[in-house]
Amino acid sequence: MNRENTRTIHVGDVAVGGVSPVSVQSMCSTKTENVEATLAQIAALESAGCNIVRLAVPNEAAAKALPAIRKGTKMPLVADIHFDYQLALAAADAGFDAIRINPGNIGSNDRVRLVADACKANGIPIRVGVNSGSIPKDLLEKYGATPEALVASAWRHIHILEDLNFEDICVSLKSSSVPDTVRAYRLMAEKTDYPLHLGVTEAGTSYMGVVKSSAGIGALLLDGIGSTIRVSLTADPVEEVKAGIAILKATGLRREGVDIVSCPTCGRTNIDLISLANEVTEKLKDIKTPRTVAVMGCIVNGPGEAREADYGIAGGSGEGVLFKKGEIVGKVPEADLAAALVELIIREEKGANSIIP
Amino acid sequence: MNRENTRTIHVGDVAVGGVSPVSVQSMCSTKTENVEATLAQIAALESAGCNIVRLAVPNEAAAKALPAIRKGTKMPLVADIHFDYQLALAAADAGFDAIRINPGNIGSNDRVRLVADACKANGIPIRVGVNSGSIPKDLLEKYGATPEALVASAWRHIHILEDLNFEDICVSLKSSSVPDTVRAYRLMAEKTDYPLHLGVTEAGTSYMGVVKSSAGIGALLLDGIGSTIRVSLTADPVEEVKAGIAILKATGLRREGVDIVSCPTCGRTNIDLISLANEVTEKLKDIKTPRTVAVMGCIVNGPGEAREADYGIAGGSGEGVLFKKGEIVGKVPEADLAAALVELIIREEKGANSIIP
Repeated sequence: MNRENTRTIHVGDVAVGGVSPVSVQSMCSTKTENVEATLAQIAALESAGCNIVRLAVPNEAAAKALPAIRKGTKMPLVADIHFDYQLALAAADAGFDAIRINPGNIGSNDRVRLVADACKANGIPIRVGVNSGSIPKDLLEKYGATPEALVASAWRHIHILEDLNFEDICVSLKSSSVPDTVRAYRLMAEKTDYPLHLGVTEAGTSYMGVVKSSAGIGALLLDGIGSTIRVSLTADPVEEVKAGIAILKATGLRREGVDIVSCPTCGRTNIDLISLANEVTEKLKDIKTPRTVAVMGCIVNGPGEAREADYGIAGGSGEGVLFKKGEIVGKVPEADLAAALVELIIREEKGANSIIP
Repeated sequence: MNRENTRTIHVGDVAVGGVSPVSVQSMCSTKTENVEATLAQIAALESAGCNIVRLAVPNEAAAKALPAIRKGTKMPLVADIHFDYQLALAAADAGFDAIRINPGNIGSNDRVRLVADACKANGIPIRVGVNSGSIPKDLLEKYGATPEALVASAWRHIHILEDLNFEDICVSLKSSSVPDTVRAYRLMAEKTDYPLHLGVTEAGTSYMGVVKSSAGIGALLLDGIGSTIRVSLTADPVEEVKAGIAILKATGLRREGVDIVSCPTCGRTNIDLISLANEVTEKLKDIKTPRTVAVMGCIVNGPGEAREADYGIAGGSGEGVLFKKGEIVGKVPEADLAAALVELIIREEKGANSIIP
């Protein structure tokens, strides 16, 4: 099912599913019981553009910290809980906005009912989140370590909730294998209208993790699958948010700030394109209005090739041109190209803003 | 058409298409006429794992350097030519392994015939490479700046070659938009059995370029589309090769060296997972045998969750475990975890090698 056709759930004031914008999540790496450190990290994630923050609640000490954390931030917060239903009740009580718990793992149906009732009473959803590392033995034996096993494992948890008439659900099926992740979500999307939370699990250190997540999450988003995403990196969670936003921009699902389009360097380039592109990227990083800005190496082909861009520069030997929507608006010495482009954009940005009373 | 079912072409000793492994390409950023610098860059690309290198041949000075470059390296070399058929003839004469040229742009059919004949005589393929910035006006008017226009533009060039009975062809259709790139290649793959060269054009500076390329190229590769890839970055071309190989590893198309699987950091982790994962990644970077190595934060769940990994460590409070195929093989103080893991792997690596006489 295409994301537009899924149900919509709400995590605090963030709608997930249906026609809602795809949201970016991350997870704190602090000890949840360290309220100060956790709130500082939530604030850092919020500044980075994160929409939803998840916290691990592995024990009572963490659970006791939840009310203070809830008081300290307006960010939509998800409590991540394994096995212990009392921790889930504590999170719901504390005013958390969602619970991630797998009902098949918390013991009796009575316990699940208590959790589902608490979530209903507080109007908060449950994320069923399965991953390739924790598929039950019987499903592993039946399906092997396959996407089919992941999907069957998710359905088992979902059915427990549905039997209790709880359907305020979001689902994730993460594998550390990108092809398996993509296959599992595709299989799931064929059969459900619950919104899907996308991620590749244990994706690794920054570089490889960004590549795996961009490929896996990107492929699904491009197919219309997925309503919220988390990039998992063994790195500062702020990096997860940066990567998540970059994936949404790359797949055309978020237009925000400057999108730099620049040639690869090739033997035809007569200017130092790498420095130029990096300088422009850096100087325009605070602009929030969506703008496509081209940094091109060929004065002959540049403006035409980048006609879709809002602004651009193309360098030649010593001199370059400044262009706007494919039309040349000025010639500038190479050394001043970046500055002239940045000045033009910031001037028009201010002009645009000054229209607002 | 799935990549396995495409025709196979040969760029030097690299087979492209059919069941051949997906190859990684890059392009020199040196001035081609600077033979020494170009050969040095080709060598750097080769060490980085590049399979095919392209050089821009924009003028006679560059063309004159081709024989000396050809003599200086065994790497499969592609000459990138626009408009001037004589430069293409020079590249074929110089012993280059492929020509990238769009026959619709070089003037008369007689000129195309000369190029096709020279390629036939030398047994080298032609890549038809269209991109979103250079779609002919009439196609833009008919289709707008769409994936359909890209595909129509590619067919126009292909038909010119087919009319001359030249079918030793590879095709690329690059857009600076990831969704358009994916759509264009999917449309093309439905209609042709020529092998496809994948890329997102003008992808930008390193970070965003890697995300765009991983999403676009990754999505296609995961669908079974694409026989050779180039990541275009406004950065050192060695970075393009690094990213290309990472995309192949992420999509399961190349197993080479160590694949680190590591948890995201979360409030359940009791060790410094980021440093640990980075240390292990760095220390094992020279191992070429494919190995999945897990670096996990939970001593309880780690070995089980990472049972698919060849080796792994999982950290606890002060102490961690070393495991192999999900079985714990030792307990180690936290400070020695990375070293113990690396030692185990290198020892077995040497053991494995010593079997070879």
